[in-house]
Amino acid sequence: MSVSGSLCLAWQVHDKHCLVIGAGEVAYSRIVHLLRAHAKITVITGAGHVHPQIEALEPELHALIRREYHLSDLRMYEQTDLSIDLDDVMDHVGAVSAQINETFANVCCCIDDYELSTKIYHQCKYLRLPVNIADKPPLCDFYFGSMFNQDNLQIMISTNGKSPRLSKLIKDTIARQFEGVDVNRAVENLGLIRSTLRSNVVIDDDLVSIDTRMNWIKQLTDFFEVKQWAALDISKGAAEAIVGYFPGYPPKDFVEFSDLVAKHI
Amino acid sequence: MSVSGSLCLAWQVHDKHCLVIGAGEVAYSRIVHLLRAHAKITVITGAGHVHPQIEALEPELHALIRREYHLSDLRMYEQTDLSIDLDDVMDHVGAVSAQINETFANVCCCIDDYELSTKIYHQCKYLRLPVNIADKPPLCDFYFGSMFNQDNLQIMISTNGKSPRLSKLIKDTIARQFEGVDVNRAVENLGLIRSTLRSNVVIDDDLVSIDTRMNWIKQLTDFFEVKQWAALDISKGAAEAIVGYFPGYPPKDFVEFSDLVAKHI
Repeated sequence: MSVSGSLCLAWQVHDKHCLVIGAGEVAYSRIVHLLRAHAKITVITGAGHVHPQIEALEPELHALIRREYHLSDLRMYEQTDLSIDLDDVMDHVGAVSAQINETFANVCCCIDDYELSTKIYHQCKYLRLPVNIADKPPLCDFYFGSMFNQDNLQIMISTNGKSPRLSKLIKDTIARQFEGVDVNRAVENLGLIRSTLRSNVVIDDDLVSIDTRMNWIKQLTDFFEVKQWAALDISKGAAEAIVGYFPGYPPKDFVEFSDLVAKHI
Repeated sequence: MSVSGSLCLAWQVHDKHCLVIGAGEVAYSRIVHLLRAHAKITVITGAGHVHPQIEALEPELHALIRREYHLSDLRMYEQTDLSIDLDDVMDHVGAVSAQINETFANVCCCIDDYELSTKIYHQCKYLRLPVNIADKPPLCDFYFGSMFNQDNLQIMISTNGKSPRLSKLIKDTIARQFEGVDVNRAVENLGLIRSTLRSNVVIDDDLVSIDTRMNWIKQLTDFFEVKQWAALDISKGAAEAIVGYFPGYPPKDFVEFSDLVAKHI
């Protein structure tokens, strides 16, 4: 079996307009993904039935428009009409930013009408809008993988369309591994040590470089497993004590390290 | 800590032009991601030093251009000049497809010059090109997460920029879990059962629907763990025997199931 690959990316669609065309189960799953990323979601339902779970989400949507798709929908929020020399772009940053805010960051089309969805695909491509036509892999700039979300941790599993069901099985395996692990706590603990290191250990041309500091925190992070970092409750005082070992290291033994942390509640 | 979220997507950049500006360590890591996804990569190195590992990859790149960035680079492959009524897009599919092939699917800018990279960002946005300006999160349409790649399985870990180091730790934890597991084998085994099911169990308006078939394969997949599916070597004959149980199921006990598979080498 030849190895296929996607470019797996974490898209930033916070407060950006995104368009969903359709109102069935697939549209609902797209909406859930987009909500997690805090997008401004417009749904064009089509003339048919609207999934009750989409109706329930209406307060969280930017717009739920109950009618057939119109061609002009792809540019429905665009008002800025730019015609500038690209070399002068820095003189028009405000207008360019306005255009970014008015353009759909992506379009998810989840309708059964193959002819219409093919047309929407080409319209999107002409307008340079990234598009996903559900169930038509060749008409997709991007796929959705299986997602594991917990606090600030997001894990996407993709088998590149070869076995969506296996993706889900792998997701479940990973989920079991992080069950009961407070990942946010681990992120906070390491973040506090990093910020304490930055303020207490000053960059010095001779002895301390950005690299030595960065390597120190890398080494320290690798001392313990995620669930061990998540089990600690590191105070500002404990972070000071840990950073006090720099350029040496605090105990690598988890029990001793926990004792050190416990001494500075 | 408030939960932030990205829209995690698997981008299809196979055979699409992608642009990397810069030739340092970050540029190298972008190139590695893009190669995995079979993109057509153009690198504009800038005037400075080129990372030796980028030089070593030159045969796999579409172009390695050793000079400063020019504004026209963002459209360097574009020749199709379209001016069509969007409603007539289906009469111009060839031209639209040509335009897709000529447009950069994304731009990764990895240079230290903040002023220039800010300008490149706005130029990209004006041209509606998705862009990542390294080390400048507000100037990024997308981030790169930590990647675990094995055969056709890709897992992306993102802490939404809160702790890149923790992403790496989580990646290592997941990697340990799949060490020695032949994920491609699992994908192939399940793919063979699915295709056998499709050809042997014909859709029938009354008894067998797409849904009943799909649910059957879902249930079956969940019988075993990924590493168990990966440990089997299911022949065409074994797949026939397994599908023979439909609408019932083969043994749920892994040892019994393995025996069934072993009977049809």
